[in-house]
Amino acid sequence: MLRNPAAKYRPATTVNLPDRTWPSRQITRAPRWMSTDLRDGNQALIEPMNPARKLRFFEQLVKVGLKEIEVAFPSASQTDFDFVRMLIEEDRIPADVNIVVLTQSREDLIRRTVESVRGARQATIHLYNPIAPAWRRIVFNASREEIREVAVSGTRLIRELTDAMPETAWTYEYSPETFSLAELDFSLEVSNAVSAVWEPSAARPMVLNLPTTVECSTPNVFADQVEWMHRHLARREHIALSVHPHNDRGTAVAAAELAVMAGADRVEGCLFGNGERTGNVDLVTLALNLYTQGVAPELDFSDIDEVRQCVEHCNQLPVHPRHPYVGDLVFTAFSGSHQDAIRKGFAQQKPDAIWEVPYLPIDPADLGRSYDAVIRVNSQSGKGGMAYLLEQAHGIFMPRRLQIEFSRAVQAMTDETGLEASADDLYALFRREYLDVDAPLHYVSHRMVSTSEASNASVEIEVELVRDGQPVRARGAGNGPIDAVVDAFVRGLGLPVRVMDYHEHALTAGADARAACYVEVRVGDSPTGFGAGVDANIVTASLRAVVCGVNRHIGRASQEAQAA
Amino acid sequence: MLRNPAAKYRPATTVNLPDRTWPSRQITRAPRWMSTDLRDGNQALIEPMNPARKLRFFEQLVKVGLKEIEVAFPSASQTDFDFVRMLIEEDRIPADVNIVVLTQSREDLIRRTVESVRGARQATIHLYNPIAPAWRRIVFNASREEIREVAVSGTRLIRELTDAMPETAWTYEYSPETFSLAELDFSLEVSNAVSAVWEPSAARPMVLNLPTTVECSTPNVFADQVEWMHRHLARREHIALSVHPHNDRGTAVAAAELAVMAGADRVEGCLFGNGERTGNVDLVTLALNLYTQGVAPELDFSDIDEVRQCVEHCNQLPVHPRHPYVGDLVFTAFSGSHQDAIRKGFAQQKPDAIWEVPYLPIDPADLGRSYDAVIRVNSQSGKGGMAYLLEQAHGIFMPRRLQIEFSRAVQAMTDETGLEASADDLYALFRREYLDVDAPLHYVSHRMVSTSEASNASVEIEVELVRDGQPVRARGAGNGPIDAVVDAFVRGLGLPVRVMDYHEHALTAGADARAACYVEVRVGDSPTGFGAGVDANIVTASLRAVVCGVNRHIGRASQEAQAA
Repeated sequence: MLRNPAAKYRPATTVNLPDRTWPSRQITRAPRWMSTDLRDGNQALIEPMNPARKLRFFEQLVKVGLKEIEVAFPSASQTDFDFVRMLIEEDRIPADVNIVVLTQSREDLIRRTVESVRGARQATIHLYNPIAPAWRRIVFNASREEIREVAVSGTRLIRELTDAMPETAWTYEYSPETFSLAELDFSLEVSNAVSAVWEPSAARPMVLNLPTTVECSTPNVFADQVEWMHRHLARREHIALSVHPHNDRGTAVAAAELAVMAGADRVEGCLFGNGERTGNVDLVTLALNLYTQGVAPELDFSDIDEVRQCVEHCNQLPVHPRHPYVGDLVFTAFSGSHQDAIRKGFAQQKPDAIWEVPYLPIDPADLGRSYDAVIRVNSQSGKGGMAYLLEQAHGIFMPRRLQIEFSRAVQAMTDETGLEASADDLYALFRREYLDVDAPLHYVSHRMVSTSEASNASVEIEVELVRDGQPVRARGAGNGPIDAVVDAFVRGLGLPVRVMDYHEHALTAGADARAACYVEVRVGDSPTGFGAGVDANIVTASLRAVVCGVNRHIGRASQEAQAA
Repeated sequence: MLRNPAAKYRPATTVNLPDRTWPSRQITRAPRWMSTDLRDGNQALIEPMNPARKLRFFEQLVKVGLKEIEVAFPSASQTDFDFVRMLIEEDRIPADVNIVVLTQSREDLIRRTVESVRGARQATIHLYNPIAPAWRRIVFNASREEIREVAVSGTRLIRELTDAMPETAWTYEYSPETFSLAELDFSLEVSNAVSAVWEPSAARPMVLNLPTTVECSTPNVFADQVEWMHRHLARREHIALSVHPHNDRGTAVAAAELAVMAGADRVEGCLFGNGERTGNVDLVTLALNLYTQGVAPELDFSDIDEVRQCVEHCNQLPVHPRHPYVGDLVFTAFSGSHQDAIRKGFAQQKPDAIWEVPYLPIDPADLGRSYDAVIRVNSQSGKGGMAYLLEQAHGIFMPRRLQIEFSRAVQAMTDETGLEASADDLYALFRREYLDVDAPLHYVSHRMVSTSEASNASVEIEVELVRDGQPVRARGAGNGPIDAVVDAFVRGLGLPVRVMDYHEHALTAGADARAACYVEVRVGDSPTGFGAGVDANIVTASLRAVVCGVNRHIGRASQEAQAA
């Protein structure tokens, strides 16, 4: 243990602002959102995105409703430059989306940055330079005047270059780096010097962005800093005041919220809080926090699982099971008294009334999710629950989200019997709920031809099913069996099925052993659900799992239709 | 998208407190810490801890320096009751550690709770009852008076029972549940009624704990609520004011910090933010935030990785790679300019001076970590680190026995180079050792016809390989692809192959994703060994895996023959 941290660490500087107004304010509308997933987020990945992943992420951001997207640091790499050119030349940027490109303040870098967005309908050139004292002294060995001149001369060049390209609607953005660690009067001095060059107006938009590149104080101190700048900034009426919090102290969401109360108009961050070190502020949490305050976030997370899957794929980093609004466990109640209160809350919740279900701050349905009540099967023995029993006794290794889904059926069973469930009871229930579900679709047989050479795979499948008593055949093709089966369902049966996740494993040793397959499927826009299948043939097991998942979806849909 | 959340969700109630003082305060010493990992945290696990894991966690909490540890809800289960008895009867509680046991306000539960700690040197009986309006109306259908009486009568019984057991030094704790959603005047009314019964004094300590069971407002509103209670509470000088934030809005750390500025003396939470839904407030982040403010946290995280390993083992939940202070990526700089600034900062940092390295808010050495030393594997770190890196960075989830097998190759590599291995080094090694092994057998293509009806499966396969430069074709049949491939090897190539285990999973989401397959094969009577394959087609992936496993067997056999 460090015995005397006071000798090693300096407390954050505070702001003398006794007449601060932000603590009495509330957030009544959404700030402007800017995603830096493709820039600050991408920079912080173990493996930065390739162009395909970057494009997929860009399209997801557009779909979510982002109107300002920082797409690259074009002067830093050819990959980044080419990505921006591709977006523009292939006309992939919607007319109402403003792309942002970041640059340091050096002539060659600025020229290349402006060049990268040539031909865009609208674009933001984002200039930054470090101005905080530690950086001035340790990194640059430069005076305040020299550092201010770096910002001013860069701005002047950007103005010259963009004035000469009137076909693009330009926005200028400036970031005094590590604003949170800089002297307020110096941040103001540089910001005012820069805006005097740009001359912001309605026709010449400007953003002043205040980055907590390193989060170093409680969030109220940052709010004070923002309110101070808000009050003192020259040309304030023509400048959008923006914040860019990082999460070193775990308080980035709070810092952004208090900053908006203190006068910020705009927030920069990443989906699910990706970004350098501890991450940038999480735009999803910020947006959905507005929901529960009765304010429209102006971003669409009505299918939050789809957004999460895209982000996990592109970033190759997981979202934590306890991440607000989206984690696997956040709509799960384990405690009996919580489950009881939630059940009563749902029973009394009227469709058009104010949301008021205990322990659930948001209606999971608004995010395309559902509430899960998890029962403890064997907690008295201390040997753990249903997943443990099924693993030990039957070799069933369920993916986590399937555990949660299945636990609802377990709860219904134990509620009904009033007894503790044995491993065999659980396996019988698993068969009944998944493996034996063969209506309305009953799998009969399939014929598959799979050919594969090095990089060229081709699978054709014909599946024979019985649907409501009538034989049905469906054909599909793809680059693998699951792809082909999904194609058969979509084209042959008209069912808009997608497979969101897939796991398969041997139940016992040996080539003649049976395999268990679990697939998470989504039919149309419904919430995802699982199907499972067991067979000696791994292809048949996966086919059975998809059929099971679709059957379970149809069963749920018809129950809901009856209930309605 | 929900078009009008204002019609569905109610904005949080605010507090009219224009003369609030907390925004001008700073935290100058650590609050009292209470860990509820073994109670609130344990309750929220998919698999609650067994007694062995619970004891390990308890001992870790003691080692970290926790003096107040909520160990159980003894009346809820025999396991919990027995755990408390074991701690006391085996004398495992240090003299300066106060254990806390939680109870609802029912006579039988209170009696059993007090009984559970009989013989302890000191103990805290923690009573809670829900008092917020939604709970009164939806769950209990009870008036304010009735709800207050539940708290008062429970307190009276606890006083009676504990007065009769003077051998234990008792503390009484009361929590008005979901304080954050309750009317302030009613929280005050119940709290004062309860303390009038307990009559707190130096000799009769009391804690009043204010839980945000559900986080429902920006953290400044919670701070206002706490400051209001702090000002109005009767017998304030004899009561420790405590907070218990949850993280539904992602602002629990901020809520706790602002609450301490507003007058709270004590914080309840869990290590790394485990707990119901989005978790309890993270005590580790709170404590280490104090470090960087120049305040001693009075908890010891000088070997934070050890603490993390214990918590991940006990909770069976991961700590996220971007978790403040402890995540794998939080002391890693990817950007060149950041690396440059950090290097200059280290060069200029004097041993006894104030810490001032750009981008690193804390000296990693104070946590037993090092800058840029994360995401590396060396020969000492064993199979856990390697598997984790391959999972996080490359989506490779090896079966356990494959982890063990592969770790030998990792060790050989790091022994030879003397260097640490990065995630990319490991993936390159995995490719070299498994995915790229294509001699003496080289897979070219296959053609498979699979037909399957209910219990009758039939697969025929023709595999084209190159063996020692010569094309070879082998045909096989079986009841599934793996069975047929094995048959082709046995009959077509004369290789007595068996497949002992099989795992396959999607590397990424979606039906068009690639799958990774791992098979454990045995050739003749030789020891088993693994093969692995990756392909968009699950059949091709498994075929590649079998070919890989056979090639690796042949390679081992020829090495042994040379050695003999």
